[in-house]
Amino acid sequence: MKFIDKLIQSIEKTESHVCVGLDSRYDKLPAFIKTLSVTSSIVAFNTKVIEKTAAHAACFKMNVSFYAGFGYEGLKALALTNNYIHSHYPEKVILADCKRSEMGESVGMVRQELFDWLGFDCVMVTPWFGFDTARDYLLDESQGVCVYVHDSNPSAAEFQDLQLADGSYVYEEVAKRLHVWNTNGNVFAEAGATYPTQLARIRKIIGEDMVLLVAGIGPQGGKIDDLKGLFGKNHQRLLINSSRGIIYAGIGKDDYFAEVEKATMDLQKKLYLASLI
Amino acid sequence: MKFIDKLIQSIEKTESHVCVGLDSRYDKLPAFIKTLSVTSSIVAFNTKVIEKTAAHAACFKMNVSFYAGFGYEGLKALALTNNYIHSHYPEKVILADCKRSEMGESVGMVRQELFDWLGFDCVMVTPWFGFDTARDYLLDESQGVCVYVHDSNPSAAEFQDLQLADGSYVYEEVAKRLHVWNTNGNVFAEAGATYPTQLARIRKIIGEDMVLLVAGIGPQGGKIDDLKGLFGKNHQRLLINSSRGIIYAGIGKDDYFAEVEKATMDLQKKLYLASLI
Repeated sequence: MKFIDKLIQSIEKTESHVCVGLDSRYDKLPAFIKTLSVTSSIVAFNTKVIEKTAAHAACFKMNVSFYAGFGYEGLKALALTNNYIHSHYPEKVILADCKRSEMGESVGMVRQELFDWLGFDCVMVTPWFGFDTARDYLLDESQGVCVYVHDSNPSAAEFQDLQLADGSYVYEEVAKRLHVWNTNGNVFAEAGATYPTQLARIRKIIGEDMVLLVAGIGPQGGKIDDLKGLFGKNHQRLLINSSRGIIYAGIGKDDYFAEVEKATMDLQKKLYLASLI
Repeated sequence: MKFIDKLIQSIEKTESHVCVGLDSRYDKLPAFIKTLSVTSSIVAFNTKVIEKTAAHAACFKMNVSFYAGFGYEGLKALALTNNYIHSHYPEKVILADCKRSEMGESVGMVRQELFDWLGFDCVMVTPWFGFDTARDYLLDESQGVCVYVHDSNPSAAEFQDLQLADGSYVYEEVAKRLHVWNTNGNVFAEAGATYPTQLARIRKIIGEDMVLLVAGIGPQGGKIDDLKGLFGKNHQRLLINSSRGIIYAGIGKDDYFAEVEKATMDLQKKLYLASLI
């Protein structure tokens, strides 16, 4: 099945635009879950989060660094988590937030790492080195390629917002290229809600059909109000990532994972209402 | 000891500008070295290459993907290789060719992964997300931060060479920012020899004092002639990476590792001669 079709079907079925960011740091897990090894503690935490959120989320995303920071044990937990998702929720796709910029021979190595070993369905690539970093992922339409067009962090504007000789901006050039790169229908874009003008401009450039993954809602300052009108075709082409706001929602509460579920459902509902406008 | 001082001392001591790229793919290793496990085969190969090249090389660099592509076994081989270098050649620094773009909380995770677990001395970062991706590595001057300013691959020009409203180019803006970012003396630049005009321009912008790591010499088409005049202060501020040209030099030859040594010494000599002009 095509990656993009699977993703859109999941948005449709769950009526959710939420991408749950499983950036589960071992050292930040609640004490009650830290029982045995690093690996089993992370897996125990993740499987509980997944159980509680899967029905209310379009997809999952992990920042690979949060696992690699704990060495073999962390990466093993990541591989086991992805395996759990695929076996229990085969309709879900999993995005590798890894900001890769490999090309040529090393893309084959990244494919072995992310898809074969760790079990992801989608690589996220930084466009700095141009098309060479995306080309070799395009052929297999069962896998997705997400390009960081404009990010949510404070210094994202430093190079992405430089104005070009023709009056346009660097990030707009990247957005325009996505049409050229998207020869196989599996390319989509990432942008930050903390730059609402750029976000709206990106939706305009990439069109209504392409999926747009938005970061920076919540603690970083991005507002759901600024997403109105940006949900794309059938209101089903927008994903909002939430990591800490979901996975740590239970801190200090009696029933940790009930709060995780509640936080996901709250965001799901707010986004659904925003998508209708 | 400061990372940059250690690197420059090694350039001085070895009279070499060669950075040996240990991009050792398990599946491409010569059959005679593939004895036991994936890990021990890679480590056996790497230690032989290191033994033969250390006296003729300024430093080592590994593309992390070439190890992560072989899962736990590959990454274990990487950690063991770096540990071998530090214990047998403590005067050498090791660069992580990883094209990272993490920021904030996840930088702490990358530090744990690359420095604490895998044993690197230097992270290489993609500038797309601006200063946020470099800031948190700057404080520890025993570690280096290399920024990809202009790359050697065919599509590098796609965004890096866009012309700005003021007539300059995007990659020049990155090069200019390195002065601002380099608050602690441990920042340096990467550029590709396949774009000689841009390479010369980058040396001009970053100045004679900053180390410049050059990729793309040899098979990719970059020419040593184009490096003349770019070696910086005391002719000691340029590094040339060579990966396949060194580590696979022994293919089809009687004494594999003697050819590895010869290839390194040949490049060392050519660069030394070029540095004098």
